[in-house]
Amino acid sequence: MEKHDQFLMKKQNKNLVLDIIKRNSPVSRMEIAKITGMSPTSITRIVNELHEQGFVRETELVTSGVGRRATLLDVCGSVLYTIGIELDKFNVKIGIVNYVGEIIAFESFYRDAIERYEDTLKKLKKNIEELIDINNIPSTKIIGLAIGLPGYIDYKNGVVKVSDQLKWKNVKLAEDLKQLTSFSVIVDNELKMKVVAENFMGMAKDSQNAVLVGIGSGIGAAIILNGEIYRGESNNAGEIGHTMVNPTGNVCNCGKIGCLATYISEGAILADGRKVKDLDSIDDVFDAYRNGESWAVNLLDRTSMYIALAISNILSIYNPEVIILSGNTIEKFPEIKEAIEQKCDLYIWEPLKEKTKIVYSQFSNRGVVLGAAIQAQNKLLDIE
Amino acid sequence: MEKHDQFLMKKQNKNLVLDIIKRNSPVSRMEIAKITGMSPTSITRIVNELHEQGFVRETELVTSGVGRRATLLDVCGSVLYTIGIELDKFNVKIGIVNYVGEIIAFESFYRDAIERYEDTLKKLKKNIEELIDINNIPSTKIIGLAIGLPGYIDYKNGVVKVSDQLKWKNVKLAEDLKQLTSFSVIVDNELKMKVVAENFMGMAKDSQNAVLVGIGSGIGAAIILNGEIYRGESNNAGEIGHTMVNPTGNVCNCGKIGCLATYISEGAILADGRKVKDLDSIDDVFDAYRNGESWAVNLLDRTSMYIALAISNILSIYNPEVIILSGNTIEKFPEIKEAIEQKCDLYIWEPLKEKTKIVYSQFSNRGVVLGAAIQAQNKLLDIE
Repeated sequence: MEKHDQFLMKKQNKNLVLDIIKRNSPVSRMEIAKITGMSPTSITRIVNELHEQGFVRETELVTSGVGRRATLLDVCGSVLYTIGIELDKFNVKIGIVNYVGEIIAFESFYRDAIERYEDTLKKLKKNIEELIDINNIPSTKIIGLAIGLPGYIDYKNGVVKVSDQLKWKNVKLAEDLKQLTSFSVIVDNELKMKVVAENFMGMAKDSQNAVLVGIGSGIGAAIILNGEIYRGESNNAGEIGHTMVNPTGNVCNCGKIGCLATYISEGAILADGRKVKDLDSIDDVFDAYRNGESWAVNLLDRTSMYIALAISNILSIYNPEVIILSGNTIEKFPEIKEAIEQKCDLYIWEPLKEKTKIVYSQFSNRGVVLGAAIQAQNKLLDIE
Repeated sequence: MEKHDQFLMKKQNKNLVLDIIKRNSPVSRMEIAKITGMSPTSITRIVNELHEQGFVRETELVTSGVGRRATLLDVCGSVLYTIGIELDKFNVKIGIVNYVGEIIAFESFYRDAIERYEDTLKKLKKNIEELIDINNIPSTKIIGLAIGLPGYIDYKNGVVKVSDQLKWKNVKLAEDLKQLTSFSVIVDNELKMKVVAENFMGMAKDSQNAVLVGIGSGIGAAIILNGEIYRGESNNAGEIGHTMVNPTGNVCNCGKIGCLATYISEGAILADGRKVKDLDSIDDVFDAYRNGESWAVNLLDRTSMYIALAISNILSIYNPEVIILSGNTIEKFPEIKEAIEQKCDLYIWEPLKEKTKIVYSQFSNRGVVLGAAIQAQNKLLDIE
């Protein structure tokens, strides 16, 4: 084998071994050899290098079945940090996350819905620097930052193509923020960041096939297939909000009839509710439901039915191991869970029911920050 | 690097280079080096070995931009063969396919719908042997066979779990046929075999993301994601027939309301048609449409509408590069294409419309045979 190829291979193997330790820790050298198919001698050499570089440490000693003793390995949390950011219409959240996925510093600040792009960026810079300072994080150990936000993102170039919520169009967010902070910057849709967190340490931990559904002001799905984010040909995969589920039903602002979003998005529920009563916000609908007002019960019964229908359709199409429900509607109105589950029980094909976990995100309002930081580690760390 | 790892790596690289030559032929050594990231020296060594083993040959000499001359490589069709088989209720098709995907021998024979499993197998064995004999195929060059059939298949173990059409349940097809013929045997769902053919040399050639939709007595989809068959967690991905598309609509035999299949499957169309008129088969519905009988026009208009709705939903969810329509309904009733396309034009989101090809399978009745044979090559060939 040529020198050039050997070097490349060695580097790939080293990154692979580190990734395996990170995902399976604590893990023995023997297990790593088994997973990779590489020889124990190679594994020992690579682990020694990773140890010297500070990525890996030895932990407990365990006794295996046949009485042999093995030292287990895990990764060192403090070897590096990344910064995860969630940008939303009214709110910005920043977290500093270590290599084992712990948020070791967190803050959030208010954003004006009509705030200029440049001003949001300046505030971001200031708040990031303060957060690093106050928490005494050594800047040299921060390998980069990542941002999750609602909208259609050119993630390869870090460009926000359109974000209706933030009122941004074609802004070079990664480039601009890198210039301000000198960190490497990754940008992606918020749901995609969230599913990365779920896949690394949440309800879809280590799952090869998982779907995260977001139900709130927007309706969408982020998908893990074969252990990777699945984007489709033009990064539009998971656009469930505009699947047609009733061709004789509601008119959608996309011009079609009966799109899922017209039955389950916050805006759609609110608009239909206002046909009956003056309402300030979606919270008024939830309150009316709790008061037993029939229009609200009718409306939210329909919502839960269509959410269950969507879950059933996603299972039929993607056949994931796990489907995670998340978003404002689920968090603000947890009563809907029971209604969704009852309908799911009627809709989902028996064999799929047994094989699929239907769960709720546990990260509440820190999922995007966490996922962004983890994604930054996945994408920016490439050790020699 | 250890000897063990070096050997493994060399073998992997060799299979990789052969695969690249097969998929990109004619291709130069330089291009292969570029695609793999391996050094030209390694590529030359591997190509020499492949040449000696008879897999690869040199073809034309081309002059590249800077005046240098490069010899192009392609694979030798006659180096090996596989046998592709399609099993259906009334019909069995067998094809012998060479290494470049040419069907060099083909035959089909009638099967009785109530024929016993053992009898179908015996007939298969006899017909395979005759086909090999008559065409003077050297048996030693046949590396295995593969079968595509309708039903739910445990493809890993070659077991037909359920096939309603063939009336088989839990039969060990791969094992039994291997015992009879002594060939290695692969078994999979027919649509999955078909999409392999489309991906290797058909309407989705080399596509990373493609969906094949089958519309006939059954409704289903086979999916290529990231260049591989996507199966989901329990091999149920693509079950579009039971996605709910109208929760106030038709009752489905699965117990749900408004499943896609209740609007577009042959059986459903026929059952609805019989509410109006005595009908022998689905052909009578198509004939009535051609005669302008209003009930048939209403019924098939609804069918084309729901097919377009399904296409639109698939694009929103999977965001493939190409969607291929196939199956009896499309082949027997090509008039439906125009109606589907008109509705697609109304339903599909503008940016997706530009980026997605909606096409029709061109293999007609040989797609499954071809795909099975190609899949046998993909799965059974592993050169040292």
